[in-house]
Amino acid sequence: MKGASGSIVTTEPSALPSIDPFYAIGLSVLARRLESEGAKIIHMEFGQPSTGAPAAALAAAHRALDTDPGSYWESQELRARLSRHYQETYGVDLPPGRILLTCGASPALVLALSARFAAGDRVALARPGYVAYRNTLRALHLEPVEIPCGPDVDYQLTAAALERIEGPLAGAIIASPANPTGSILPPAELEAIVRVCDDRGLGLISDEIYHGLSYGERARSVLEFTDQAFVVNSFSKYFSMVAWRLGWLAAPAAHADRARALVSNLFLTPPSLSQHAGLVAMDCREELEANLAVYLRNRALILEALPRLGLATIAPPDGAFYIYADVGHLTDDSLAFCERLLRDTGVAIAPGVDFDPVEGRRFIRISFAVSTDLVREGVERLVPWFAAQPRRA
Amino acid sequence: MKGASGSIVTTEPSALPSIDPFYAIGLSVLARRLESEGAKIIHMEFGQPSTGAPAAALAAAHRALDTDPGSYWESQELRARLSRHYQETYGVDLPPGRILLTCGASPALVLALSARFAAGDRVALARPGYVAYRNTLRALHLEPVEIPCGPDVDYQLTAAALERIEGPLAGAIIASPANPTGSILPPAELEAIVRVCDDRGLGLISDEIYHGLSYGERARSVLEFTDQAFVVNSFSKYFSMVAWRLGWLAAPAAHADRARALVSNLFLTPPSLSQHAGLVAMDCREELEANLAVYLRNRALILEALPRLGLATIAPPDGAFYIYADVGHLTDDSLAFCERLLRDTGVAIAPGVDFDPVEGRRFIRISFAVSTDLVREGVERLVPWFAAQPRRA
Repeated sequence: MKGASGSIVTTEPSALPSIDPFYAIGLSVLARRLESEGAKIIHMEFGQPSTGAPAAALAAAHRALDTDPGSYWESQELRARLSRHYQETYGVDLPPGRILLTCGASPALVLALSARFAAGDRVALARPGYVAYRNTLRALHLEPVEIPCGPDVDYQLTAAALERIEGPLAGAIIASPANPTGSILPPAELEAIVRVCDDRGLGLISDEIYHGLSYGERARSVLEFTDQAFVVNSFSKYFSMVAWRLGWLAAPAAHADRARALVSNLFLTPPSLSQHAGLVAMDCREELEANLAVYLRNRALILEALPRLGLATIAPPDGAFYIYADVGHLTDDSLAFCERLLRDTGVAIAPGVDFDPVEGRRFIRISFAVSTDLVREGVERLVPWFAAQPRRA
Repeated sequence: MKGASGSIVTTEPSALPSIDPFYAIGLSVLARRLESEGAKIIHMEFGQPSTGAPAAALAAAHRALDTDPGSYWESQELRARLSRHYQETYGVDLPPGRILLTCGASPALVLALSARFAAGDRVALARPGYVAYRNTLRALHLEPVEIPCGPDVDYQLTAAALERIEGPLAGAIIASPANPTGSILPPAELEAIVRVCDDRGLGLISDEIYHGLSYGERARSVLEFTDQAFVVNSFSKYFSMVAWRLGWLAAPAAHADRARALVSNLFLTPPSLSQHAGLVAMDCREELEANLAVYLRNRALILEALPRLGLATIAPPDGAFYIYADVGHLTDDSLAFCERLLRDTGVAIAPGVDFDPVEGRRFIRISFAVSTDLVREGVERLVPWFAAQPRRA
């Protein structure tokens, strides 16, 4: 904003924080155009289950359509059920009063950032990381402090890196399992990060959206180590209800009232149908574990194919449904690389630049949240294409 | 934030913008408690239709549950249909590319504010007004500039008031029909506001969520006078789909790309079921106009009862489904007044302080979005209670 006091002035576009585009969305639009022209596209560009909601959840939604007139409504039953989930899964006491229901994890993140930080606050996060972290920070007039995290730390933020940050710092965002890598923070490291944050009064936000999707040790919740952190989560991944827009925020007791006041101003309540269905989905373990078994098979297929693809360096795919692979021997422009791959083979994947504007130029993210048949066919298309790519000098 | 460079510091809670509670929510919680104890409550505290979605929209949702696996999805058909709606209703050319679908009007407002304003920008708005305007501005680190608007201007912002504002100004929020008053900006005044904003490069946001609900002249869209304003709207009021969380933002061409980048970071897409159902709802005119006829009857019932209630000063209820009435002869504490009314009569209404922290102490808002029978019964409970209240000295 410029201009002297007493005059009406306008905001110069240059004063607005810059927001990066989400390149995978552009690739997806291209993929759909190619599809409409007759191409058979395999969609491995987004992190969304193709399985749909559990059958019993769909049935609950049918029933609710027939009986619930619909209003601004926050299901007390669902909050109580989520509270029980924390007890059963993590051994953590999280009272329903600290749980806020939202239209997915994205607004839960907006809510946590608004509840905890003041304009200009600096918030640390790992690079690579989910693109929305840095963009949402900027949109809310906060300052992302991106910490380059390489293979030596499994592409994750560490307590040591947090302590090395120069200048004032107000908080940190962590994610485990992470997007784009799938790597899980070891419990000791998570605990060390918590200790740094709690000792220094930093606001810690833990994105646990991929919890339930792990292939070895389960991911630990930050709430196993502290009751001072915010947790963002949703029904979009493990519960396979991406289109239902249902998520939640767990807030520390001291911030819960503020978060509640904010949610009724910024967002109001999530869709009532989704709340009915989500409550039922939480007890559809058998179906959800069957989905997980599919991801496990898909992951094995891609891991087996890595040598044939000539890919040697990948992030540890401990959880989520991604392979984040170094393709630096083939390109230093992952966006152009992904576009060429899509046009040549019909396989859509995400360029690393969506997650890391610097190192991401030589990385790709492959999502294996599609059916096993499609993963198999995707691999068969990728192998000869990768083999035909010239190595960079 | 405090602390010297080089040190980790925390955000003091005092540095966070203050967010007012939404008192009507507290009253509603009390109402539900009384209900659970056996009281028969009449809910006139919120602005939400009790009619539910049109039958054909419900049928579309049933079909989508059976066929759509669900993904992050923005319906191109719905955006095209909304574009046609602007042509048919307002004679305005609004290309689908300028329409962004959101989880209701609330996130559409967040989106408009984020897309248009920089931290610290001052934004004008009428007092009384919807509580979320000033709270959302504060939460996004913008500064609300509240303009007291009394009965002489139908409680609406005017071009003249906008020109009188001292200090730098970056934009304005208008609403017509307004909440809590229901008053509609006369076309000439709306045009004059547009002229001030366009001439001076102010960002103008028009909340048109109550469009379709008017009882005399239809409300004009700001887009009939400019293509430089943002419009916030939703399916929650006229389309009677409050629980579906579906809204939209119309952005000026120059800001549409930025808004699109923001929505994919802050919110992603709205519920896919709601998009299927909303598309169908737009053609359910007969059912929706029948709802409007109910509101017209309800409004007439309350207007007829005003003398018996001893209420002489109300805002012009041109649209929406509210009566905003001056009860200054009975109280200067509308919150306590509403709580007493609720406990004594079982009728829940909203206190004026939700909409105007100053003058609202002597106002109440009665929503007539319930059935005609309930409005009739509500009035019969209110009349003797109002008659028994002592006049203030």
